[in-house]
Amino acid sequence: QTQSTIPYFTYGKGLGITSPDSLFQLNIRFRMQNRLGLRTKSESNLDISEVEARIRRLRLRFDGFVYTKKLNYVIQLAFTRSDMDYDDTGFPNVVRDAMVLYNFNKHFTIGLGQTKLPGNRQRVNSSGDLQLPDRSIVNSTFNIDRDFGLQLYYNNSISSLYYVLRGAISSGEGRNFNSSDRGLAYTGRIEFLPLGTFTNNGDYFEGDLARESKPKVSLGLSYSNNQNAIRTGGQLGKFLFAPRDIQTYMADFLFKYNGWAFASEFIKRNANDPITVNDAGEQRHVYVGHGENYQGSYLFKNNFEVIGRYSRVKPDEDLIEIEEIVEQYTLGFTKYLRGHRVKLQSELTYENNNWLNDTEDTGSYIVRFQIEFGI
Amino acid sequence: QTQSTIPYFTYGKGLGITSPDSLFQLNIRFRMQNRLGLRTKSESNLDISEVEARIRRLRLRFDGFVYTKKLNYVIQLAFTRSDMDYDDTGFPNVVRDAMVLYNFNKHFTIGLGQTKLPGNRQRVNSSGDLQLPDRSIVNSTFNIDRDFGLQLYYNNSISSLYYVLRGAISSGEGRNFNSSDRGLAYTGRIEFLPLGTFTNNGDYFEGDLARESKPKVSLGLSYSNNQNAIRTGGQLGKFLFAPRDIQTYMADFLFKYNGWAFASEFIKRNANDPITVNDAGEQRHVYVGHGENYQGSYLFKNNFEVIGRYSRVKPDEDLIEIEEIVEQYTLGFTKYLRGHRVKLQSELTYENNNWLNDTEDTGSYIVRFQIEFGI
Amino acid sequence: QTQSTIPYFTYGKGLGITSPDSLFQLNIRFRMQNRLGLRTKSESNLDISEVEARIRRLRLRFDGFVYTKKLNYVIQLAFTRSDMDYDDTGFPNVVRDAMVLYNFNKHFTIGLGQTKLPGNRQRVNSSGDLQLPDRSIVNSTFNIDRDFGLQLYYNNSISSLYYVLRGAISSGEGRNFNSSDRGLAYTGRIEFLPLGTFTNNGDYFEGDLARESKPKVSLGLSYSNNQNAIRTGGQLGKFLFAPRDIQTYMADFLFKYNGWAFASEFIKRNANDPITVNDAGEQRHVYVGHGENYQGSYLFKNNFEVIGRYSRVKPDEDLIEIEEIVEQYTLGFTKYLRGHRVKLQSELTYENNNWLNDTEDTGSYIVRFQIEFGI
Repeated sequence: QTQSTIPYFTYGKGLGITSPDSLFQLNIRFRMQNRLGLRTKSESNLDISEVEARIRRLRLRFDGFVYTKKLNYVIQLAFTRSDMDYDDTGFPNVVRDAMVLYNFNKHFTIGLGQTKLPGNRQRVNSSGDLQLPDRSIVNSTFNIDRDFGLQLYYNNSISSLYYVLRGAISSGEGRNFNSSDRGLAYTGRIEFLPLGTFTNNGDYFEGDLARESKPKVSLGLSYSNNQNAIRTGGQLGKFLFAPRDIQTYMADFLFKYNGWAFASEFIKRNANDPITVNDAGEQRHVYVGHGENYQGSYLFKNNFEVIGRYSRVKPDEDLIEIEEIVEQYTLGFTKYLRGHRVKLQSELTYENNNWLNDTEDTGSYIVRFQIEFGI
Repeated sequence: QTQSTIPYFTYGKGLGITSPDSLFQLNIRFRMQNRLGLRTKSESNLDISEVEARIRRLRLRFDGFVYTKKLNYVIQLAFTRSDMDYDDTGFPNVVRDAMVLYNFNKHFTIGLGQTKLPGNRQRVNSSGDLQLPDRSIVNSTFNIDRDFGLQLYYNNSISSLYYVLRGAISSGEGRNFNSSDRGLAYTGRIEFLPLGTFTNNGDYFEGDLARESKPKVSLGLSYSNNQNAIRTGGQLGKFLFAPRDIQTYMADFLFKYNGWAFASEFIKRNANDPITVNDAGEQRHVYVGHGENYQGSYLFKNNFEVIGRYSRVKPDEDLIEIEEIVEQYTLGFTKYLRGHRVKLQSELTYENNNWLNDTEDTGSYIVRFQIEFGI
Repeated sequence: QTQSTIPYFTYGKGLGITSPDSLFQLNIRFRMQNRLGLRTKSESNLDISEVEARIRRLRLRFDGFVYTKKLNYVIQLAFTRSDMDYDDTGFPNVVRDAMVLYNFNKHFTIGLGQTKLPGNRQRVNSSGDLQLPDRSIVNSTFNIDRDFGLQLYYNNSISSLYYVLRGAISSGEGRNFNSSDRGLAYTGRIEFLPLGTFTNNGDYFEGDLARESKPKVSLGLSYSNNQNAIRTGGQLGKFLFAPRDIQTYMADFLFKYNGWAFASEFIKRNANDPITVNDAGEQRHVYVGHGENYQGSYLFKNNFEVIGRYSRVKPDEDLIEIEEIVEQYTLGFTKYLRGHRVKLQSELTYENNNWLNDTEDTGSYIVRFQIEFGI
């Protein structure tokens, strides 16, 4: 049993403890999102139809290295009911991330385990690095979430064009499946940063908290092919009554400069014969269609931010009688007390619901307040 | 990434780690209750009818501050089956506390999140600060448990009369609900301490472990109005077949002096039309009625304590055919090894069950032994 | 609140933090097993029938002492779906170990809580100390797992014959039951080490990582009598339709010397009338029968190990139409990077399935790769 000398401590992202002689590093983090939300009955009747009063997320995270600084790990545990995906899957998904990563060099990393797939940017950003209380409806409808498998990461630059390549081969069933069929999921992503890298990895958190002194841009493209998917969203959602192949195409754009941030995403999902039926005549379907999200913000010098967002998801004709077009217009205000770790977030959203075959729109207002708190 | 100097450690209540420059404090605690219990078939037939052999509670707790010492947090996770409330709710309630608190000054605090409501004293006391292996039947029948919402805390004194005011507006559905209806719960509590504050906050743990050198008294009154409650106990219990408004009135008294402690509680619960029925004719009801608990103890100099308790719950006439009057007479012995953190607890209880419309009492004996262990 | 001086740190098995004045010790550990596996459709058709792509185990562990170095604890939490036993029991079994132990002296220890029963050696070894990706089919069919109860541990020597005695009285229902019937489980085990103790407790991990300089042997015998068992495997498995008494007899042998290790186990399980039936005619049965496991390995100087294993389980005649004889021939390769804490494991297994009343064997191949990673 090795012992006694004092470890090396870090405090920047959680509490980091590195053993003498670098045997291992254990970095401990937690965060929670305590949320109050209201939805009105309609756009004219402002009576409250629904109250959202809950711990939306509560996470423990451990990361660091063992044996050599090239051999890293990330573990993330989630304890709230919605984080556990309990209502969709019928079992408690506590494990979110459990990944072992080997860095061959500063350009190339390979990992085995469960973590996020390289999908759309808003999903790849941590839920603890959002500027509004939650991600957009485009993300919730189309994201490809987490999965278990092999992941590759490569970055490099061609003169001043910095780029990132990511790839994954994974089970395709999402988090915490005991066994699956032959149909795997294949995901690839490429990111171009023509104006160089962002300050403090600012392309992976929302809002220009780094106040970029020069304009920075990132352009991302992802493609996912989930073969023999058994859930409505591939890696997410309730169980389909028959497997389907699901293709998802994603493009996103990010710009940051001097407190301003602008981000947009476009996602399209395809599946042949997206509606599955069981013997009792019940239907479950892959959401085929597309979505677009536009999000802009300005951060004042006192770390108060104003955010605007427009999101829209539209189903394909196959789902004309099942899913409606949803649009959201959001105005948000966020006060960052300790960057993204401790912040107060609020939003006012107008949501419009519109059937493809119908002109009778319905609308409602949503108000949310959230404290994000963690280390 | 801030780094390197050694943090400040504390050991009094868990392992406390405060970063240099007071960026944050992380205090880590755990505790478990390992319990063996037996119940006899009746008061004359001493054969064993039921064995309770289990980890009753196993908790992890994190608390401290982030950003400023005024901004505090408490997180508590519970991992045993009964702590998860799994059998009542059908989903795993791991999150017990997740609260962010802001101390305006030494008198006034406001919090948002999930934690205990300001109900009866025995419930507000931590389950790790009990003198007997568990709380009384009065508490288990009538307590208002935890909820998500906004809580206010104010304390001050008028000359030597110290007082505490607490209020909460909460969802009313209890722990870990994703969304709820308009019917919220409103809870208020006032505590009077006419002889001044207790040593080491002794009004929030059982037994006079502080051996008060002067007599100390606390008198508490709580009121809760849970509108449109959907569970049999408001924040607790199985789901009713129709919502009900539930009012709960609570009064409690505490006295401590020189190793002696005496505590009593009176709780009354009302609801109109307390029995709900579904289409299949099944019934679920709000327990309307009242309860009383009397508990006295003496702590010897060697930290061995003798405890006596009498508890009684009586249903209202509405429940005459569903619930019986229950009385418990308990004699307990507790040896405190490291205060409430490490202790050996035992009890012998006689329970008497008596139908309102019947004179045929039944009785049984319960024996329990428990190790409480934690930091 | 005691405070301030720096604790004493250890790094050998997790991160150990001992408070000044030895008030308590908190040792923090984690580990995960990230696994990729394939099974072929048959021995001739090598198409993939099943993919196992998952976090097999992810555990947090806390141990140490509180109050006195004689009063120890072990807590282990498990977060993956299969570790939670969710599919068998229908509730999430997060708590694996929660034990308080008192060491009277270096020979004698008594404990109360939930942990492994003193059954077969491969089960008693931690799943983090295995040389192949998982335990044998003999273990998975017959082991007696964990239970809540009282455990005794005694070790001593008669001249050079070292021996260990273990006993347990436990609920018999396995992990995390709220209450049970009178029928308890009684377990006893004896181990003989005629050539003295193993280096670094090498009789409790697989493979001769200690490279014993002299031959070492351990011989173990266990007996378990689980009265009124309500699950198919006593402490494990789905719920029987009627209780049964289950007896399990276990013998195991271990030899290690100079990088070589050889281990074998024999287990026999009895129950009268092992098949239970419910009103709908469904059957659930206690697996009565026997199994044998032989496992040998050599560890090269570069910490690369080659392992061979043969396992066989055979049901009794009662189950002739329900269970088949299963044999597995396994060849494994393991590279230890930091002992059992960080290692790469692979295996190729041929499985043969054979009905007692039938000569039509079926076979298949299994390939597995696993990263074990922890501190």
